[in-house]
Amino acid sequence: MEILKPDAIATTLSERRQRLAQLIDFPVILWSGQRSPRNYPANPFPFRASSHFLYFAGLPLENAAILLNGASLELFIDDAPPSSSLWHGEMPKGSEIAQRIGASAAFPLSELQSRATGAATIAVQDGVTRSQQTQILNRTVAPAKASEGIDRELVQAIISLRLCHDESAISELKKAAGVTVAAHKAGMAATLGAKIEAVVRGAMEGTIVAQNMTFAYPSIVTVHGEVLHNEEYHHPLQPGELLLADVGAETSLGWASDVTRTWPVTGKFSPTQRDVYDVVLAAHDACIDKIRPGVEYLDIHCLAASVIAQGLVDLGILRGRVSDLVERDAQALFFPHGVGHLLGLDVHDMEDLGDLAGYEEGRVRSDRFGLCYLRLNRPLQQGMLVTIEPGFYQVPAILQDPALRSKYQDVVNWERLAQFADVRGIRIEDDVLVTVDSREVLTAGLPTEANAIEQLVQEG
Amino acid sequence: MEILKPDAIATTLSERRQRLAQLIDFPVILWSGQRSPRNYPANPFPFRASSHFLYFAGLPLENAAILLNGASLELFIDDAPPSSSLWHGEMPKGSEIAQRIGASAAFPLSELQSRATGAATIAVQDGVTRSQQTQILNRTVAPAKASEGIDRELVQAIISLRLCHDESAISELKKAAGVTVAAHKAGMAATLGAKIEAVVRGAMEGTIVAQNMTFAYPSIVTVHGEVLHNEEYHHPLQPGELLLADVGAETSLGWASDVTRTWPVTGKFSPTQRDVYDVVLAAHDACIDKIRPGVEYLDIHCLAASVIAQGLVDLGILRGRVSDLVERDAQALFFPHGVGHLLGLDVHDMEDLGDLAGYEEGRVRSDRFGLCYLRLNRPLQQGMLVTIEPGFYQVPAILQDPALRSKYQDVVNWERLAQFADVRGIRIEDDVLVTVDSREVLTAGLPTEANAIEQLVQEG
Repeated sequence: MEILKPDAIATTLSERRQRLAQLIDFPVILWSGQRSPRNYPANPFPFRASSHFLYFAGLPLENAAILLNGASLELFIDDAPPSSSLWHGEMPKGSEIAQRIGASAAFPLSELQSRATGAATIAVQDGVTRSQQTQILNRTVAPAKASEGIDRELVQAIISLRLCHDESAISELKKAAGVTVAAHKAGMAATLGAKIEAVVRGAMEGTIVAQNMTFAYPSIVTVHGEVLHNEEYHHPLQPGELLLADVGAETSLGWASDVTRTWPVTGKFSPTQRDVYDVVLAAHDACIDKIRPGVEYLDIHCLAASVIAQGLVDLGILRGRVSDLVERDAQALFFPHGVGHLLGLDVHDMEDLGDLAGYEEGRVRSDRFGLCYLRLNRPLQQGMLVTIEPGFYQVPAILQDPALRSKYQDVVNWERLAQFADVRGIRIEDDVLVTVDSREVLTAGLPTEANAIEQLVQEG
Repeated sequence: MEILKPDAIATTLSERRQRLAQLIDFPVILWSGQRSPRNYPANPFPFRASSHFLYFAGLPLENAAILLNGASLELFIDDAPPSSSLWHGEMPKGSEIAQRIGASAAFPLSELQSRATGAATIAVQDGVTRSQQTQILNRTVAPAKASEGIDRELVQAIISLRLCHDESAISELKKAAGVTVAAHKAGMAATLGAKIEAVVRGAMEGTIVAQNMTFAYPSIVTVHGEVLHNEEYHHPLQPGELLLADVGAETSLGWASDVTRTWPVTGKFSPTQRDVYDVVLAAHDACIDKIRPGVEYLDIHCLAASVIAQGLVDLGILRGRVSDLVERDAQALFFPHGVGHLLGLDVHDMEDLGDLAGYEEGRVRSDRFGLCYLRLNRPLQQGMLVTIEPGFYQVPAILQDPALRSKYQDVVNWERLAQFADVRGIRIEDDVLVTVDSREVLTAGLPTEANAIEQLVQEG
């Protein structure tokens, strides 16, 4: 295991525990989880520790648990058997890890049950560990988003901590952002020589792996940007197409980045592509300019909707007054998702908790066409990291839907739209930290302007 | 989903079903499995279908099942809900997939239970699908390696099919081998400019991703080759060190490659490194030369042991008669694993079945120091694909073990060994197909000789 400076991480973890202790008065056990098998048990997927565990334990320890009790931290982990050293090398002992993270003691996992009385927890993702949670706590452990009782109190307390990032977290998030910026530049540089999407993906993911990071989510690298979560990479890159790349690095301690750029495969936007690109970019820039503490994220989403609606009116694709169009969600025909979300240890931070983290208490998701996919609806606070990711897409399932076509018949100029057939999907996404009186774009090292993007692609 | 030529795959699958039908007389249901969540449910690991399912269904269909009954094939899969098209695009309908793979019909999964009577199966890896297996078959489904009754009969029948690869499989395996060769060349070329192991890994994995393939197993790219399954990539590359890379591609249909090379980080072996390298290479070459139908794989393993023992005697590291040394497993101090294993849809093919596939019926693993990690003990047959991967390692857990040091005190020249301190781990591994009267090295495009390896690294 890569060794961290023990003092730095132990201090951070101690501060997090103290802040937690101000919010709850019961003990907490958090499990890290185990690997999931891939095609047979000895060939598993990479290990990813539970994000709540990572927040308080600092290190991605496999099959471990921590007991938090006020300011105290105890670690529960089994030392590797001697026979494992042939295959896995000498692993640090539990006592060494405990020291590194500032835990007062390390115990084998078998000791956990006797210390588990009255503890709250949050359900992990892997089924094997989840049954251990039930067994050791000797009670039902509901799924994280449906937690009850002290588990729910714990969830609320952890949300209030994880919503606003501390210095240690911000340092990691900046590392992830920096490598993600490099990955996108590598993807642009690889495009002119690429025959299929996978070649660009290889350049981007290779860059992330080379920095000893992993991927915060399945990469999207596609000429079919109209499929929002596209996971196919076999399409050829054909002249006149746009490539949409939504790729983010995750540091070895689990902190994420999430960035999208869209660029022409030839290095040159067509006039129609550039027109729409500039509309999306105007929304992106306007939203970022608005970010500061106290601003409602919903208002930023609505700003994106307005700027996109205005831009599409200016291009002749939509007709009518912008305020009326947005009132009717007409822009959602082309911008059907939310303008962004929380970012932290998870790319949609704390989405294991459903909307509990993303939505301020008392607020629920709207079912409106233009709001139903909005993942964040809270006033911004200093230390929050959010994405800003407006887009424009021609999604067949939306634009060919008879009910939607009929509903919006009067506001869409379908003939004019047909002239933009070479714009399947555009998204521009950056990671923005809310600062004391303003904002910091962590991914500002990656250009957004069309000319600068063209140059990066052409320089190859 | 990437579209295959429908005829080609349907014909192959039909032949596989017919061969299965000659061995069993009961229906079979095979499940593909589901994705495992990573840090929250909507952010899963990549999907990997069960290998047994892939063998008979041909395509990596998520959350699907097939019913095999004699020559008949029926597909059970739910069509994606209309709401998913925004996020995932238009997915092919079950009926379209059925046609592509030569299934007589497609049904929703809810129809499976009524057709499941008397069917055998093999347990999959993910827990959610495993409970569905139990529920739909309305009986216990034991882990694959401990299957009983008709499930065990099915396992034996599938082993006899999957042991020897058909033309379609060999075509895929050659694709995986070709991309793996390219990845290793890219890794060598990236070495002189690399500061840490991860940079070389990035070049290798990026090459595989660029070909729209994935990884058959967690890559090993390490200057600590003495840790056999090393998954750390943060160590600096320091002059005088060897880099061991065990990296293999897997095609989109699930077929694997598994290749290891070891090269000097400066592009120049030291005299001691070259001496040991040539011992390992001699074992590698001798084992490959011996491969043909009818030869016992155990004999090939023992040949590797002998060649390595002889080489270490010649270098003055071991003392005594080679036959006595091998009899006492003295070579296992430095070559503690088996010389190779089956390769196919799994990198250790069918290891979900324990040793049922690797070991001929009636044979069990030896507990001898030099044999206990041998994963394959069968006579070779035409169509088998095996790895040949002898190695030399200085594993602290072995060489510092007081009992082993005492047991082998008389045969190891510890002072001479100390002169080879710059040789922590060397492995040379290729994928070898057993042909009608000989063998074909699928990974022969990647050099093995020390001079050729040096040249590839130096050319950068």
